[in-house]
Amino acid sequence: MGGFAAQDPGFAERVRASFVRQRFMATLGARLVRVEPGLCELECDQRADLTQQHGYLHAGAGASLADSAGGYAAYSLMPAGSSVLSVEFKVNLLEPARGQRFLARGRVLRSGRRLYVCELELEAHDDGRMRRCLYGVQTLMCLEGQPDDPSRG
Amino acid sequence: MGGFAAQDPGFAERVRASFVRQRFMATLGARLVRVEPGLCELECDQRADLTQQHGYLHAGAGASLADSAGGYAAYSLMPAGSSVLSVEFKVNLLEPARGQRFLARGRVLRSGRRLYVCELELEAHDDGRMRRCLYGVQTLMCLEGQPDDPSRG
Amino acid sequence: MGGFAAQDPGFAERVRASFVRQRFMATLGARLVRVEPGLCELECDQRADLTQQHGYLHAGAGASLADSAGGYAAYSLMPAGSSVLSVEFKVNLLEPARGQRFLARGRVLRSGRRLYVCELELEAHDDGRMRRCLYGVQTLMCLEGQPDDPSRG
Amino acid sequence: MGGFAAQDPGFAERVRASFVRQRFMATLGARLVRVEPGLCELECDQRADLTQQHGYLHAGAGASLADSAGGYAAYSLMPAGSSVLSVEFKVNLLEPARGQRFLARGRVLRSGRRLYVCELELEAHDDGRMRRCLYGVQTLMCLEGQPDDPSRG
Repeated sequence: MGGFAAQDPGFAERVRASFVRQRFMATLGARLVRVEPGLCELECDQRADLTQQHGYLHAGAGASLADSAGGYAAYSLMPAGSSVLSVEFKVNLLEPARGQRFLARGRVLRSGRRLYVCELELEAHDDGRMRRCLYGVQTLMCLEGQPDDPSRG
Repeated sequence: MGGFAAQDPGFAERVRASFVRQRFMATLGARLVRVEPGLCELECDQRADLTQQHGYLHAGAGASLADSAGGYAAYSLMPAGSSVLSVEFKVNLLEPARGQRFLARGRVLRSGRRLYVCELELEAHDDGRMRRCLYGVQTLMCLEGQPDDPSRG
Repeated sequence: MGGFAAQDPGFAERVRASFVRQRFMATLGARLVRVEPGLCELECDQRADLTQQHGYLHAGAGASLADSAGGYAAYSLMPAGSSVLSVEFKVNLLEPARGQRFLARGRVLRSGRRLYVCELELEAHDDGRMRRCLYGVQTLMCLEGQPDDPSRG
Repeated sequence: MGGFAAQDPGFAERVRASFVRQRFMATLGARLVRVEPGLCELECDQRADLTQQHGYLHAGAGASLADSAGGYAAYSLMPAGSSVLSVEFKVNLLEPARGQRFLARGRVLRSGRRLYVCELELEAHDDGRMRRCLYGVQTLMCLEGQPDDPSRG
């Protein structure tokens, strides 16, 4: 993380408020478990309705979690009154996503004025055993003067 | 598509059976609307529980649909008794995914013995207007002799 | 491609002038063979000093050509007085790059105010036979008011 | 690196022999400066004939170095008598590649029987200052029983 500092002291609250508005995260049963300047972690539990054909977490569900984790890692460093947009992401599926609980982590690698780059990972946790099952890189854009929640200015 | 031929005449049934086992696709409300040798299309409707913070389809939901579409495009060309695995994918989010209905298309660009490459796209359809909102590339692996549904051999 | 129109009537000259300043292109023996709004093609010949360990074109040499082709496809659509920057690119190596001549093509998929997305391909030509050996996607940024050749304003 | 162990005690010599056969590396002036199980570093100097239009290292030259570094990081873990192939790579260009010397590092993230995943980075070094200018992820394949140098069996 290289010691990023948040320019908005209210970054954590801003991230949490945006996370709640991502209704797809509720559909996945995702919880926001950690937010620090340049870092965000989300987790969800294994559930049958999130699986692919072999009973493991669908790669798209894992990528969704990772995309949001990276988005909020970047958003934590953006100014108040801005919003965040994923430009692109790439994920490698290192292992089948087999576990009881999945932890997605986004970490800022590069913080610019407009463009941010994050690394993404997804860990599968199972009875105290952890395996990294997804690794990726994501590019994001900061939209200044476009508040994430337009209804609140 | 370049005139791919399926080596398994039962490819369409095999794809449909696997799609049904992807329970995450049901969670997204996805329907398999087209499968041809080297091509697959899935669609889903706009639903509030699939959205990101601005009310558009979450990039992860779109990527999930695209990942499965590409997976089944490749799987249509694989031999009977095999299964398919996404190795990695990369998606660019060209536009906000705003529409009433979303169509994901996977198309095989390269068909090898083990590795396949697909292009992925997601179209947003809205009152007869269509916009491509996601474009990507995916690498997949064929696991021969590992049937997709182990219970049926 | 997709009916892109150049906003700068001098786009082709501007692209050619920038290409000449890319001295690495001369190192690769690259020639600019086609530039249209949203499209650019570069080619180079097979040369022993561009090879990897098996005697084929090094993936990095092919990716370099493709990166520049995509950059100039996007740059053709940018305003006069701007410059272009690659944000990221991803390439799949579909086949060994075996041939006498290689043609890289960049084509704009999405043209925004700041961000552009291109598809990239590299064809290997050999005695009238053509094989696509690389396929990729690239994100670029337009830097307005930052002329490509600072010495000419 | 996670403590990878090489299965071939002659891995370093095998990597060095293959690097010498990559004639494009000589064209870039690249030197192999470090090889350990799962890790490889290559470096080159700033040279005018490697630049893009603004006088910095061309992204393709940096990506070429990174691609080879990742390839040899993976190759160090492969068995004797095998060869390595890049399946795909994705690079983000974090900063302009401005410096006197460039160091590319490839590090294995995932080592499988056939598929390997590496992270790639390129550092620009300038009067004792270092900036990471490229970050990426790469997928590679091990071809067993296909020696890298066919002439030596």
